[in-house]
Amino acid sequence: MAVRHYTLDFKLSAPADHSATIRGLQSIFQEQEMTETVHDTEGHGYLATFMGKNGRLAILRLHSHGLVTFDLQCCEGDDLAQVDNLLNALEKKLNTLLQGTIQRVKRLPALQRGGEVDRYWPTADGRLVEYDIDEVVFDKDSAYQNIKILHSQQFGNILILNGDVNLAESDLPYTQAIMGNGREHYAGKEILILGGGDGGILCEAVKLKPKMITMMVIDACRTHMRKTCGNVLDNLKGDCYEVLVEDCVPILKKFVEEGRTFDYVINDLTAIPISTAPEEESMWEFLRLILDLSIKVLRPTGKYFSQGNCVNLTEALSEYEGLLRRLSCKVDFSKEVVCVPSYLELWIFYTIWKK
Amino acid sequence: MAVRHYTLDFKLSAPADHSATIRGLQSIFQEQEMTETVHDTEGHGYLATFMGKNGRLAILRLHSHGLVTFDLQCCEGDDLAQVDNLLNALEKKLNTLLQGTIQRVKRLPALQRGGEVDRYWPTADGRLVEYDIDEVVFDKDSAYQNIKILHSQQFGNILILNGDVNLAESDLPYTQAIMGNGREHYAGKEILILGGGDGGILCEAVKLKPKMITMMVIDACRTHMRKTCGNVLDNLKGDCYEVLVEDCVPILKKFVEEGRTFDYVINDLTAIPISTAPEEESMWEFLRLILDLSIKVLRPTGKYFSQGNCVNLTEALSEYEGLLRRLSCKVDFSKEVVCVPSYLELWIFYTIWKK
Repeated sequence: MAVRHYTLDFKLSAPADHSATIRGLQSIFQEQEMTETVHDTEGHGYLATFMGKNGRLAILRLHSHGLVTFDLQCCEGDDLAQVDNLLNALEKKLNTLLQGTIQRVKRLPALQRGGEVDRYWPTADGRLVEYDIDEVVFDKDSAYQNIKILHSQQFGNILILNGDVNLAESDLPYTQAIMGNGREHYAGKEILILGGGDGGILCEAVKLKPKMITMMVIDACRTHMRKTCGNVLDNLKGDCYEVLVEDCVPILKKFVEEGRTFDYVINDLTAIPISTAPEEESMWEFLRLILDLSIKVLRPTGKYFSQGNCVNLTEALSEYEGLLRRLSCKVDFSKEVVCVPSYLELWIFYTIWKK
Repeated sequence: MAVRHYTLDFKLSAPADHSATIRGLQSIFQEQEMTETVHDTEGHGYLATFMGKNGRLAILRLHSHGLVTFDLQCCEGDDLAQVDNLLNALEKKLNTLLQGTIQRVKRLPALQRGGEVDRYWPTADGRLVEYDIDEVVFDKDSAYQNIKILHSQQFGNILILNGDVNLAESDLPYTQAIMGNGREHYAGKEILILGGGDGGILCEAVKLKPKMITMMVIDACRTHMRKTCGNVLDNLKGDCYEVLVEDCVPILKKFVEEGRTFDYVINDLTAIPISTAPEEESMWEFLRLILDLSIKVLRPTGKYFSQGNCVNLTEALSEYEGLLRRLSCKVDFSKEVVCVPSYLELWIFYTIWKK
């Protein structure tokens, strides 16, 4: 049971003539045998709702400041060609009735509400975007988060953690960016990966003949993200890597105590929090802790890689950079803007090193 | 005068209990002093509309098959914090009332309808996407099309032709792809560019020391797409290039007659039509004509580059490939999938050569 919600808006240079507009549209709604209700808006323009026999609901508003909005909600199984005809007829008629005052006509692709698959996964900077998702591959709550893997026609399987698009099979540019985009020489080096449960970083890193990769994850997605992880997660131990399915913090602390160090630390745990609101304080606290411990296990010539967030979230990014400047161990950093295909927004990646 | 349109949907495993749900929500609407109208849906669930003093309109529908949709439209100048509170209160209450049957709760970023800047530019495959557009830089109708240049926070200025996102300043990957992604050696070669009025291809090509570039455009955007075109469009003639502000077809025909040929032909005129519907027949006709003439002016070892369309539009892409197989001069082709930052969808590019 899903609802398709259509919108058709006319932005005008002057308010529409209510009675002429309504009179002009009457025949269209009558033809559809829709029952009209005119509402008292207490001076806020004209509002009428129309109910059709098949559950169709139409809402016509003539705003006092020169905007006409039309909404049409129809239920699954409705005749879409007929709905299109109705919208075409309305658009055509309104184009005639409002002639000379029209600044913009906008008819958006229908919102699909309550459908079997959810196609709307807003960007980190809060924009509404629709994905070409056609299948729910996996959907489960772990002890830590909700894990979804959804299939997109163009991006392949997409991993979505707690509603955030994390990585799609199309997103090799993400993995390349968080490994330094080809600027590093991994051969013979020791690498620590925090998170990265999708296996993308591990899969690319083993190709570069490192001495040893240590990876710490709390879950894995080796079944549904094969294009990302290959067969590298089928075994938790390989010639040059070891996957520890454990919580990062205690292990990092143990490494610090033992004086164990790495050439590269790649933090793929999470993006930086999108705000500095109090409810995200604990996220920032966690980030600071991980950063601090990671820098401690980094060799003097080593590099620490991490994702930031959407390039538009300047406040959160500044907060993070402030944090970097206040670390107990002095560091320098550079950043890079990268287009990750499935994100539908540009993403910042950080490279951090000891001063 | 813009309207913010909020949606809040509950997908359920069983129909909601009408009277219990409505009774449970009553106090929220009463607190807001909204006037309620209950509609006769002729058996299609429950529908009530609520009108607030400030022009706010709320629509509550309990569908018979287990979906609850809530819409809230409010006008510019409304208190957004108050609106958020209302939505939070409703979401919280519905979470309690519908407990045990909830499969999904979805609250989308508000649709902005009738605003000064239009943020919604659907993808070629028809998905609803919102851009972070904050300014209309340029908006004019030419003899051929509507030309808009809008400023996006992350993509820079975006060129939009007849409502289609054409190129943003972030889109160097587009220009690189349509030039063969670094696989070609342009030094000393003769290049013909069809279209490409944004100057991106010309700007990149002149860096590669070609013998001569001939470019044919019907308009230019040298003022607002500086990051794309640099200063290359400030003069229509340079050391190794010449821009002809003319219609392609007659010039191409003249080249054919004169026997003039090129090492590379780059067609940046338009994407391939998205459908094979009769109303697009003339577009296909134009495409066939350009293709035919272009292959005729191509040297035996030459290459022809062109964009295709969104990777999801398989029918249109097949039609195009069929066309390639039926050309009077036999050709072979390869294709490549590329992520163009501002497109928010993956794009196909073609390389075509004489057999």
